[in-house]
Amino acid sequence: MKRTSRDIRTANRYHVLREIIARSPTSRQELATATGLSMATVATLVGELLELGMLTEVGFEDSAGGRPRGLIAVNVAGGTLIGVDIAETYVRAELFDLGLNVLARAEEEVRPGARTPPEVVAQVAAAVARVVAGAGVDGARVLGAGISMPGQVDRESGVLVYAPNWDWHDVPLLGLLSGSVPYPLHLDNPLHACTAAELWFGAARGRDDAVVVNLGTGVGAGFALGGTLHRGVSNSAGEWGHTTLVLDGRLCHCGDHGCVEAYVGAPGIMLNLRELSPDSALLHPGDQTATIEALGRAVAEGDPVAVTVVRTTARCLGAAIAGLVNLLNPQVIVLSSWVAATLGEPLLAGVREAVARHALRRPLSATEIVLSPIPTDPVCLGAATFALEGALARSTAVAKSRITAGL
Amino acid sequence: MKRTSRDIRTANRYHVLREIIARSPTSRQELATATGLSMATVATLVGELLELGMLTEVGFEDSAGGRPRGLIAVNVAGGTLIGVDIAETYVRAELFDLGLNVLARAEEEVRPGARTPPEVVAQVAAAVARVVAGAGVDGARVLGAGISMPGQVDRESGVLVYAPNWDWHDVPLLGLLSGSVPYPLHLDNPLHACTAAELWFGAARGRDDAVVVNLGTGVGAGFALGGTLHRGVSNSAGEWGHTTLVLDGRLCHCGDHGCVEAYVGAPGIMLNLRELSPDSALLHPGDQTATIEALGRAVAEGDPVAVTVVRTTARCLGAAIAGLVNLLNPQVIVLSSWVAATLGEPLLAGVREAVARHALRRPLSATEIVLSPIPTDPVCLGAATFALEGALARSTAVAKSRITAGL
Repeated sequence: MKRTSRDIRTANRYHVLREIIARSPTSRQELATATGLSMATVATLVGELLELGMLTEVGFEDSAGGRPRGLIAVNVAGGTLIGVDIAETYVRAELFDLGLNVLARAEEEVRPGARTPPEVVAQVAAAVARVVAGAGVDGARVLGAGISMPGQVDRESGVLVYAPNWDWHDVPLLGLLSGSVPYPLHLDNPLHACTAAELWFGAARGRDDAVVVNLGTGVGAGFALGGTLHRGVSNSAGEWGHTTLVLDGRLCHCGDHGCVEAYVGAPGIMLNLRELSPDSALLHPGDQTATIEALGRAVAEGDPVAVTVVRTTARCLGAAIAGLVNLLNPQVIVLSSWVAATLGEPLLAGVREAVARHALRRPLSATEIVLSPIPTDPVCLGAATFALEGALARSTAVAKSRITAGL
Repeated sequence: MKRTSRDIRTANRYHVLREIIARSPTSRQELATATGLSMATVATLVGELLELGMLTEVGFEDSAGGRPRGLIAVNVAGGTLIGVDIAETYVRAELFDLGLNVLARAEEEVRPGARTPPEVVAQVAAAVARVVAGAGVDGARVLGAGISMPGQVDRESGVLVYAPNWDWHDVPLLGLLSGSVPYPLHLDNPLHACTAAELWFGAARGRDDAVVVNLGTGVGAGFALGGTLHRGVSNSAGEWGHTTLVLDGRLCHCGDHGCVEAYVGAPGIMLNLRELSPDSALLHPGDQTATIEALGRAVAEGDPVAVTVVRTTARCLGAAIAGLVNLLNPQVIVLSSWVAATLGEPLLAGVREAVARHALRRPLSATEIVLSPIPTDPVCLGAATFALEGALARSTAVAKSRITAGL
């Protein structure tokens, strides 16, 4: 069991910082109420964050009859963070202030023939350089960059163990990047990034237990349990896309049959469409984005083929999500990523219906199902929070070594 | 988010007490190493447990060159705990000392016609009275009783919301029991009890994340994540039996189709046998226990029908467990409850094979799959740990009110 006092202290610090970002400016009293932590704990954590320059004192508010309360806010001048989303067809970088507001954005297109590690590394470096230059910030003030790449990631070593879409195996991505991106780097996958984004800024903030269902080319489920991202023992928790939905069903690209992803990932949805209407004008062979966007527009216009495809997809997705509701009994299920955003309310309505048909009554009645409320790229945002967490961890280590050295 | 400093303190206290029970006698230094907590935290928690009479000082051990280290052990004379397992066909009560050793056991048979709440309450009261009398302990030393009953349980109110096997709805079980069982009572279900048993005494102790797969008449999956039982927001986490394994498959008693439980719960296994060999002598119509036991004996003797049935069952179970491996990336999956114990190694071997076929490589390589190592009824043991946790919580509350009152 590795959950130590230091982990708990770190979790409490994230928890307090999240609430400050949400409420800025706020008082220690309000934070204690919001987090359930004691005033003493909140005061200590706020003191540390002030000393690190992440917060700033911004004045006082009256309290009914009592002493005026000191107000604290995020120190937006305290540094910047970068989040990078390496996706199937693009590399996107965003620069954030410490309040997690987007300051600048840059995107590079990934051409189908240009998906080797050196080519992708060059594109990440270019996007990061553009975003830093574009915001006109001093590079020295960048506290770190979080890099998200689909696949199985070893966070400690910075190695991308396996990226199914591009068939990368054991690529030392952070090692390759460190030559051209001069900031502390943190590697993880978009599933964990999206879940962190919901925890810091979205539907999971302030909830006990949330499940983030990520619908893109691949499909996954991120878990925010007790206010913490559940990563699993080798950082690969969340591979929900390869849960069996139909025993001996459709072949999945993972080699198994009947996986959830084979029915509700973007290529699976294209297959749902092709099986129903092989000659549909909605079908853009070889182009997932165009097909899903065409489906999204057609379903809004009441096109019967599109309505049926979204209903079929929602039926499979809802049956699978009902399993998550029964299994984990979360407060909220968040539908995230581009397929969820594109198919939107019609997908959500179908999913709610199917979940209600399949889930058990008691956990069902405790669970809300929502579309992600995050208006920007949740992957960049989540990746930036990894850089923020890394900066906090480093500051603590520096502070500790100073204390040890007697400074 | 409700994880407060007090929750963390409580979790740390359980963690320390678990390690003391495992290692008794032990030193504070050894506990700090085993738990990853600081010496100061361990010393404080041990001090509290000593004051509560749950531990006792038992001497010193030499430390290489340093001061002799104080040894502490569980105070077996500090009180007793009761665990009650209300099952389909029996009510079993066990009495434990504070080291969680069984001191006495009593069992009442539940006849098929005698499953109303008053009848079951009378049987629980009888079993508890027999176990206390049988051990010759002073009733005043019983610190509490944990009651496990299959179904959906509201712990705060002590209401059994829904028990599918007996079709009980909203039965105020603790209220009914409190008239005839004169101890502090704690209600939960066997899934949570088995998971707690693995955490306190079995394969999940000292592991980061464990999944306990419970195979009986019903089927469930308990989660011990970060050393804590994950209950879900309305205490119904773990309803894995009603995860869809085969879309539009076998009708399940829950009303849905294709649920895991319909293939690998005891009645599902009977159906697997009937489909393969309708006239098999192994089949005891209407008697799950006899059928599963006959299967267990026959598979050990290499009977081809039994081997095929266990293989079919393991194939379904493994496909479903692979989903849990991919989803949660745990360190260990524990097969628990009477069906797992009866079918034993042949089932385990088949499950391991099927999981390896269905799970993704990275999470698979991080996960061990084992049979529960708990030699006694894990439900009674787990229920007793709920009583132990309750006793600790009450003692803390009393200590706090004393401090508040200035005593």
